[in-house]
Amino acid sequence: MVERKLKTIQRENHSLVCVGLDSDLTRVPKEFLGAKNPQLEFNKVIVDATKDLVCAYKPNTAFYEAEGTLGAAALEETCAYIPDHIPVILDAKRGDIGNTSRMYAEAYFRHLGVDAVTIHPYMGSDTVTPFLDYPEKAVFILVKTSNPSAIEFEDLRLVTGEMLYETVARKVRDWDGVGSTSVGAVVGGTYPADIERVRAILPKSLLLIPGIGSQGGDIESVLGTSLADQAGPVVINSSRGVIFAAGDTDPARAARKACEELRETINSTLDRLRLDPFQE
Amino acid sequence: MVERKLKTIQRENHSLVCVGLDSDLTRVPKEFLGAKNPQLEFNKVIVDATKDLVCAYKPNTAFYEAEGTLGAAALEETCAYIPDHIPVILDAKRGDIGNTSRMYAEAYFRHLGVDAVTIHPYMGSDTVTPFLDYPEKAVFILVKTSNPSAIEFEDLRLVTGEMLYETVARKVRDWDGVGSTSVGAVVGGTYPADIERVRAILPKSLLLIPGIGSQGGDIESVLGTSLADQAGPVVINSSRGVIFAAGDTDPARAARKACEELRETINSTLDRLRLDPFQE
Repeated sequence: MVERKLKTIQRENHSLVCVGLDSDLTRVPKEFLGAKNPQLEFNKVIVDATKDLVCAYKPNTAFYEAEGTLGAAALEETCAYIPDHIPVILDAKRGDIGNTSRMYAEAYFRHLGVDAVTIHPYMGSDTVTPFLDYPEKAVFILVKTSNPSAIEFEDLRLVTGEMLYETVARKVRDWDGVGSTSVGAVVGGTYPADIERVRAILPKSLLLIPGIGSQGGDIESVLGTSLADQAGPVVINSSRGVIFAAGDTDPARAARKACEELRETINSTLDRLRLDPFQE
Repeated sequence: MVERKLKTIQRENHSLVCVGLDSDLTRVPKEFLGAKNPQLEFNKVIVDATKDLVCAYKPNTAFYEAEGTLGAAALEETCAYIPDHIPVILDAKRGDIGNTSRMYAEAYFRHLGVDAVTIHPYMGSDTVTPFLDYPEKAVFILVKTSNPSAIEFEDLRLVTGEMLYETVARKVRDWDGVGSTSVGAVVGGTYPADIERVRAILPKSLLLIPGIGSQGGDIESVLGTSLADQAGPVVINSSRGVIFAAGDTDPARAARKACEELRETINSTLDRLRLDPFQE
């Protein structure tokens, strides 16, 4: 049950905040660029500055692939550096045929040792099934993504009357019962009405909600729609808004401040909405 | 125009065959496992054995990611090792929000230097647009994939009367005009009737057709549906069926033989169907 690990750290750090380690080297502060592995050193500083304020970290593989072998090392060592009691969600957005998905599942869950992976649903069950026999692990299926063009395909209306993303959400419910891996959904914070629809289909599932911060999602609507009625665990991600926060010349202090502010905004909104996701 | 490069090598090697470098270390012959980088050495042997028989190579990123930093090096050096006149299609199946897709585009087109990349359409234009300003490069959008569960979402019927994959194909047509990058489609050789529908929507587009060989696609139906009527270029991929071919104790000879046989099966079928994709 990856949920137990997640709920424990959420309670301990009183936080729903996931920090996205999108450590784009073109934006990493200059003082890191002389290091042997600048992405790794930057990530260590960010983790040290925020680890008592978060419930998860989410490295996006793109930013590490962009740096070749050095990036692969940065990703591996970052995953190893993050304290064991904090879940690591690898934002890989993978999706491939069965034998290839098996390679990805082994690479991420066993070799990198992450707790969760994001997955593209387009190709159907073949892409998801190989990930489903890992106890204490989770996959998050892209259901409704946070980006503007998410509407182009995800919102297409089917003859059944549902939109595509709703049908994907119902499939998430089916997959969640197949193996020992938890199956949750990614729903963009930029579409709170859709979070509500997904929550209706998946009342107890893990939800990973990106799109807060740089992308403009509204926290009150996000929490109100995702957490009502004894809902399953919610993780709210901010990437650039935390790790590249302005407002302090010291990047560690800037990130800590941005992370603290986001946690406090979320927690005071929870109080106002009389929601308590931190209870036993 | 990546099409020019592709058509030139197709004519030169009289071949529509793309060899998928899915170099799964658990299947790579034992004699390579002592090498400093077994995947790289295996790939070099496969490339040397087949480079006069193919029109492209297609490494799938999963098999390299599974090996961490060593895999990243194997992928980089394999891409560098493949002769410049043979297109490299990176089967990455990526799809992410705009700023992240930009990282992937730079990583693949500039740093790895591949000619083409496969992309997941689910999240819409934001995932594709950052790839569209690279002259001499191509992206292949997953339209109808070769795997059995492709039907779960890709075949969903929309209120417009179309199936989801047809709507994606029409979007491929739009994207193809946006920038200097060619935009083609992936259509599984296991669904020839759907290849025909996609070809009707995309008469002049590049088609990448996997699913031949291990996955069971039928070559005559594939060629008949994809190549009729002055159609755009077609690339037929086989991965495991070539690189892990049985029938010879020497893996280079086995791969060469399997590749030759596939090329000949395709070419004799083309003759029988009176199709000539190799003409000027």
